[in-house]
Amino acid sequence: MAAPDKVYLSFDLGGTKMYCAVLDNDHKIITTDRRKTQGHLKGEDIYARIIDCIETAVSNSGVKQKQIAGLGMAAPGPLDPATGVILDSPNMGLDHFPLGDRLRKDLGIPVLIENDVNAGIFGEYVHGCAAGYRYVIGLFPGTGLGGGIVIDGRIYRGATGNAGELGHMTINPDGPLCGCGKYGCLEAYASRSAIVKDIAALAAAGKSPTVLAKAGTDMKKIKSNLIKAAMDAGEEPVRQIVERSARFLGIGMANCVNIFSPELIVLGGGLVEKLGKEYIDTAEAAMREYAMAFTVKDVKVKAATLGDDAAIMGAAALIRGHLDQKKGN
Amino acid sequence: MAAPDKVYLSFDLGGTKMYCAVLDNDHKIITTDRRKTQGHLKGEDIYARIIDCIETAVSNSGVKQKQIAGLGMAAPGPLDPATGVILDSPNMGLDHFPLGDRLRKDLGIPVLIENDVNAGIFGEYVHGCAAGYRYVIGLFPGTGLGGGIVIDGRIYRGATGNAGELGHMTINPDGPLCGCGKYGCLEAYASRSAIVKDIAALAAAGKSPTVLAKAGTDMKKIKSNLIKAAMDAGEEPVRQIVERSARFLGIGMANCVNIFSPELIVLGGGLVEKLGKEYIDTAEAAMREYAMAFTVKDVKVKAATLGDDAAIMGAAALIRGHLDQKKGN
Repeated sequence: MAAPDKVYLSFDLGGTKMYCAVLDNDHKIITTDRRKTQGHLKGEDIYARIIDCIETAVSNSGVKQKQIAGLGMAAPGPLDPATGVILDSPNMGLDHFPLGDRLRKDLGIPVLIENDVNAGIFGEYVHGCAAGYRYVIGLFPGTGLGGGIVIDGRIYRGATGNAGELGHMTINPDGPLCGCGKYGCLEAYASRSAIVKDIAALAAAGKSPTVLAKAGTDMKKIKSNLIKAAMDAGEEPVRQIVERSARFLGIGMANCVNIFSPELIVLGGGLVEKLGKEYIDTAEAAMREYAMAFTVKDVKVKAATLGDDAAIMGAAALIRGHLDQKKGN
Repeated sequence: MAAPDKVYLSFDLGGTKMYCAVLDNDHKIITTDRRKTQGHLKGEDIYARIIDCIETAVSNSGVKQKQIAGLGMAAPGPLDPATGVILDSPNMGLDHFPLGDRLRKDLGIPVLIENDVNAGIFGEYVHGCAAGYRYVIGLFPGTGLGGGIVIDGRIYRGATGNAGELGHMTINPDGPLCGCGKYGCLEAYASRSAIVKDIAALAAAGKSPTVLAKAGTDMKKIKSNLIKAAMDAGEEPVRQIVERSARFLGIGMANCVNIFSPELIVLGGGLVEKLGKEYIDTAEAAMREYAMAFTVKDVKVKAATLGDDAAIMGAAALIRGHLDQKKGN
């Protein structure tokens, strides 16, 4: 097969993994490179790892440098969209690193950096389960709880570019501690970290033999798979923690319904994938209970369909849209 | 003075008052008619009162029927914007009354019905303190707590037309009962009704001599003026209730900041007017404490400037914009 005329680089920079893809003009992935982020690295060291990941993906793809139109990067927010500077990355050593400028200079191509959750929900809008909807809210419970808003085919960014921090809406000022330092954010109830904190305590109290056997009481070892295994083994205390968390997610969804009146809410991330229909149904039921009747009546709730590729597909579509717009296409 | 060529009718239908204005082509008010809504009236009886209020205002203005271009009406939401049917009006006997269709038929002019809070914040955008801002959130604590969103000069309505129900975001699922039947909505903490409920209990316990003397323990008699008087008399328990409520309002504002990244938050309504700077400052301080640092940094908080005229001015601008757009102006 002849090499395609124009290719796009896309990069998903996560707290645990980094993932680079080379995509052709039809948004088909040609090659990828994935590696661990190694969260202990800082500044230049993590940047070198990013560059190496990109160079490996490009080299394996066989495309020529001049074919590369640009790079779309999904990175943890908040970030300054004007400069591509990551403003706060508690899980990664890139605080105030001028990522956009450095990549532009070192790669010699246009670079667009977008909040990873925005990129993910935009990917679902362009190629996934949200295609064709005008008003879309995305909620991705993971280490944190990311939110994204797509209205009329565009990511809603607000005045600073950092709108859509749905995980940090306070849903109980006296609630549990959140990673952001405040108490009672939606994220402190409905992220995987929040669930895992409670399940580790459960294991410590001897109430989840499955978790205790596989992970001890180490929060970091309690993955979505293990939570599912404990539920499948009939461990009722684990199920109760997950159900409670799903209900809080539903309260957050209801707030989004009352505020945005969306057509569709997309739930994504590993927790949603592993826990599946029962988890989603519980969240949806709570949403319908807490939202205004008229506004929630026709709201659909769907599981994201692109999995790990959502942010990659979204970031590629964003850089491409950006370049097409500049060309006046 | 010669009568202006085109005039617009504007109507603010509230739970306690109704207010009709006739405005000239420059949005100047020519005449008004105000009367009590008489909340015990239902259906045709309240409708007859609305028609009488309109006819009185028109008659006093001296304008001719054929000069009237249309009517903009601000009514309590939620309503169906397509039909002008009020869907739920607990404080008024107009549930599922086809207000838009009836007014169109009986007045023989184009009629546009908008949620009263949306009309109010749009009034502030067109003629008041929000002029020139791209991303504006309005919060109006009163009997309820109304919210409105103006983005790029347009009211954000979402898929159903009923977006912006900011007062019904849950900020504590175990919180106090809200008028909507759920628990812990922002409205259940930060509306005048919420404050008044606590102050009546305070008066009953003998802890607010000022309120007890003027209103006894009757919630309905505790108006914003009386709350201010009790605070001015140095009644610390009253001040604490108001401060706590203002802090919850600030938490709701912080949620709006994290979600929308606005440039401006407008606070309006009688409570804000009467309690003034101290109340606003307390809410703003809580907002800055609870919102993401980067997103809240440049957010301004202002008191609404149009008072009782906000919804009238907004509804007039909306019907006029609607008619201009139809004409292709």
